[in-house]
Amino acid sequence: MKVVIVGGVAGGMSAATRLRRLDETAHIVVFERGGHVSFANCGLPYYAGGVIEDRDALLLQTPESLAARFGLDVRVRTEVTAIDPVARTVTARDVRTGAEFTEPYDSLVLSPGASPIVPDIEGVERALVLRDVDDVDRLVAAVGDSATSAVIVGAGFIGVELAENLRRRNLDVSVVELADQVLAPLDPEMAAPVADELRANGVRLELGTQVTSIGAADVTLADGRVLPADVVVMAIGVRPEAGLAVAAGIATGPRGGIAVDDRMRTSAEHVYAVGDAVEKIDAISGQPGLVPLANPANRQGRLVADVIAGLPVRPRRVVGTAIVGVFSLMAAAVGWNEKRLRAAGRPYRAIHTHPQSHAGYYPGAEGMSLKLLVDPETDAILGAQGVGGDGVDKRIDVIATAMVGGIAASELADLELAYAPQFGSAKDPVNMLGYIADNLRVGTAATVQWHELPDLLAAGVVLVDVRTPDEFAAGSIPGAVNVELDELRSRLHELPDGELVVHCQVGQRGHTAARLLGQLGRSVRNLDGGYRTWQSAQVRVGEPV
Amino acid sequence: MKVVIVGGVAGGMSAATRLRRLDETAHIVVFERGGHVSFANCGLPYYAGGVIEDRDALLLQTPESLAARFGLDVRVRTEVTAIDPVARTVTARDVRTGAEFTEPYDSLVLSPGASPIVPDIEGVERALVLRDVDDVDRLVAAVGDSATSAVIVGAGFIGVELAENLRRRNLDVSVVELADQVLAPLDPEMAAPVADELRANGVRLELGTQVTSIGAADVTLADGRVLPADVVVMAIGVRPEAGLAVAAGIATGPRGGIAVDDRMRTSAEHVYAVGDAVEKIDAISGQPGLVPLANPANRQGRLVADVIAGLPVRPRRVVGTAIVGVFSLMAAAVGWNEKRLRAAGRPYRAIHTHPQSHAGYYPGAEGMSLKLLVDPETDAILGAQGVGGDGVDKRIDVIATAMVGGIAASELADLELAYAPQFGSAKDPVNMLGYIADNLRVGTAATVQWHELPDLLAAGVVLVDVRTPDEFAAGSIPGAVNVELDELRSRLHELPDGELVVHCQVGQRGHTAARLLGQLGRSVRNLDGGYRTWQSAQVRVGEPV
Repeated sequence: MKVVIVGGVAGGMSAATRLRRLDETAHIVVFERGGHVSFANCGLPYYAGGVIEDRDALLLQTPESLAARFGLDVRVRTEVTAIDPVARTVTARDVRTGAEFTEPYDSLVLSPGASPIVPDIEGVERALVLRDVDDVDRLVAAVGDSATSAVIVGAGFIGVELAENLRRRNLDVSVVELADQVLAPLDPEMAAPVADELRANGVRLELGTQVTSIGAADVTLADGRVLPADVVVMAIGVRPEAGLAVAAGIATGPRGGIAVDDRMRTSAEHVYAVGDAVEKIDAISGQPGLVPLANPANRQGRLVADVIAGLPVRPRRVVGTAIVGVFSLMAAAVGWNEKRLRAAGRPYRAIHTHPQSHAGYYPGAEGMSLKLLVDPETDAILGAQGVGGDGVDKRIDVIATAMVGGIAASELADLELAYAPQFGSAKDPVNMLGYIADNLRVGTAATVQWHELPDLLAAGVVLVDVRTPDEFAAGSIPGAVNVELDELRSRLHELPDGELVVHCQVGQRGHTAARLLGQLGRSVRNLDGGYRTWQSAQVRVGEPV
Repeated sequence: MKVVIVGGVAGGMSAATRLRRLDETAHIVVFERGGHVSFANCGLPYYAGGVIEDRDALLLQTPESLAARFGLDVRVRTEVTAIDPVARTVTARDVRTGAEFTEPYDSLVLSPGASPIVPDIEGVERALVLRDVDDVDRLVAAVGDSATSAVIVGAGFIGVELAENLRRRNLDVSVVELADQVLAPLDPEMAAPVADELRANGVRLELGTQVTSIGAADVTLADGRVLPADVVVMAIGVRPEAGLAVAAGIATGPRGGIAVDDRMRTSAEHVYAVGDAVEKIDAISGQPGLVPLANPANRQGRLVADVIAGLPVRPRRVVGTAIVGVFSLMAAAVGWNEKRLRAAGRPYRAIHTHPQSHAGYYPGAEGMSLKLLVDPETDAILGAQGVGGDGVDKRIDVIATAMVGGIAASELADLELAYAPQFGSAKDPVNMLGYIADNLRVGTAATVQWHELPDLLAAGVVLVDVRTPDEFAAGSIPGAVNVELDELRSRLHELPDGELVVHCQVGQRGHTAARLLGQLGRSVRNLDGGYRTWQSAQVRVGEPV
């Protein structure tokens, strides 16, 4: 059996090594257009910033090590230029010599990945991208000893990682983003702390605008302003590299990725595809979509090897768990966000909390914000987001696991998560999300979202801030009246008639207040996430408060 | 409605506050025998060690704060001495004055907790225990400025936490444990690194022995040796405080805890019980057992409030997730361990791995050891253990969630866990456990456990160490022959005929070697967990290597 694999990173290399372990006698050829296989692509920004000092650390395997251990025939700097699915051959070209040759296969695995999108603007030929080791070599060379400024176009995961790392190199760093928030996978009020963190670390953040031209040492924005830019990096997103497949008549899906079934088979017989180039079935919608992440790529690589070797496989849908570090923060997401749910017209409940990473009585707890999105009919978890310090990754991983396990939102209350005071809380932040979801489900809580507040206030709803007078004095929501929770029973008469919304700092005291007032006959809802969420939502465009 | 709650910590106080939020008009009385309610009992060792500097930080609520916010009638230093389930009254006694009184109830919630076991040995009246704030006050006073030594009896969670914290106070600390390992919830080879960590931090660890008498400033061990002991703390375990319930004719379960149904109802009408005093249904066996942990106690407290308020509730089984910090390590466990499975005669597969907390190419990764126990028939996860640095808590929490969600062991491979190089790996340690479980399930891997090795070697099985010659030279398993993995194909002829066991450092190269040899017709199994697990198992009694 001869298996040809196009692309020697993540999915492609997972397929190759798994296949070898399953079949000692298969002839396995891996063609890689770039100069390196199996490199740490998620580490590239950190090598650019000097966090990873040794370039060799990025090179997890070499053609030689793969030959020695797995008997793989790995050929770098070799581009596959055509597929003949009928003859079962590929045409390949040695990038260095230009020599072309034809390679037959019994099975073909396409793992070409996704390529950075480069917009057609003046001067863009000077812009760098960050996809592989050659790219990072170019970036490091461009920074050199003399560059003093950089503009990063795009405030997605790669963009903010690059911003942090080029600040480490003491560059003047600007990030230009067309949207009015950073990190599109997050909702705006969850992304706001990340924007604050970038600015607090000296990154110039230009949201809601774009670069219209690139000069020799600067860029020009849509409003005519000019930013210094010895180095320009395009990080506005990626698109699947489906060209080779399309040219061979292989079908693509609605999002432009190579279409595959749940055994990674393309429309051409004996041709499989994996990784960032293919469309994956979204766990929430059941529809194909693009999820360019390392974990599903690796998993698909292993799965396609099992398919080729004739092992049984399980279909797998993706929830798209992702995380990024931004200076001292981490931001993570899984499933759908509120923006996407609203755009799709899908009903949801949103829950915001602001817990601590571990028990507050133990030193060193770090704050975080969590958001949970819930199907109001089924109580299913639709998505979650987290931003903050230590422990955000853990909570998102637990929720991602719960989603896959079919654990309902309110059942998060029942999870037994490891508790000692330095690692968590007896009621873990994930449990608290479950408690709130359960209250909303059975009707022992009713909440309003930050974006509903303006209309409610305009309609005459009274907003009661149940925090202490000191907290109220330090900053409050315009129009709120302050009656401290612990005085609420005795000062009930001060509250005007009519519908009430209560709020506290993070939502917990507000819940107690709403329960109290509701049982006394008042129509009352609690502001979800409290002052903290409201405040984050206010600063999403413009300067941090 | 009048609800009387006996015990104002964890379960009791969760019940009281939830009940208030559900019923603004209920009369809620909480009797607490000790001087404090709702204190941070898991923080007590850290206050003793000075990590938590402010004693008030332990007191999360006071009777006054609970009256102000929740309208609770909380009476500390008040011991309930009798229950009359027919008259629906309790008899209570003011501990300070001795005055007795009778209090009627509509519903009674028992949350008396569990009390430290104190063995009947000479001089034991000098020994301290650590259950509440009064206890930690006594401990801090006993350490004072003049104590120079301490003996802790018991190397369970509290024992090792106390050992760490009394070392922080610069005492000479000995821990005496009857078992031949620390931390009974772990299997011996998983507990070994914890013992090493204790010793490396100057704790004298006496395993497999016991204290037979306590003198004025020392203790005597079973073998006659004498250890210095200005302070002696008993931490050998707890037993449920079921005495009050038993005296009232309320049924207990097979383990001596108060028996409750899935609505926390005891055998007496209108009497409920929650927390460490009750028997909980184990998720693996479906049988009642004792699980004295904060998370289930809090959860039950909330649940009983829902029951009393007439809300629907879900039955809940416990998996018993627990974690402890030991100097720079953390050790965590969920579900059943191998010892328990073997004792119960229940079939299982064990999987050991030694992954890094995050991608190895990113600086600062910390090592850990994980163990997964799997039902070989159903592929269900039966338990897991972890010990190591950063990220053990996350992996155990994910596995605990998977267990509750009914995610099979091999499906752990499919989990999408948040990956950026500083937080995890593209193939997370939990995914790797799933990959191995899947290989064992479908037969693409076969392993032997460390404890099977002696018999196999005695039977003539050849052990092949596929690590590099340098690794082999630095320490090897007696009897192993060394053929490096990358040379295995070319040096096949060096291997003797007959059955083979291969091993590497952690199991991964061994797997590749076993696949290779198996396909070439050899009968071969891989040593699960490799040299690392084998080595940990060797040092479980005696000094660390």
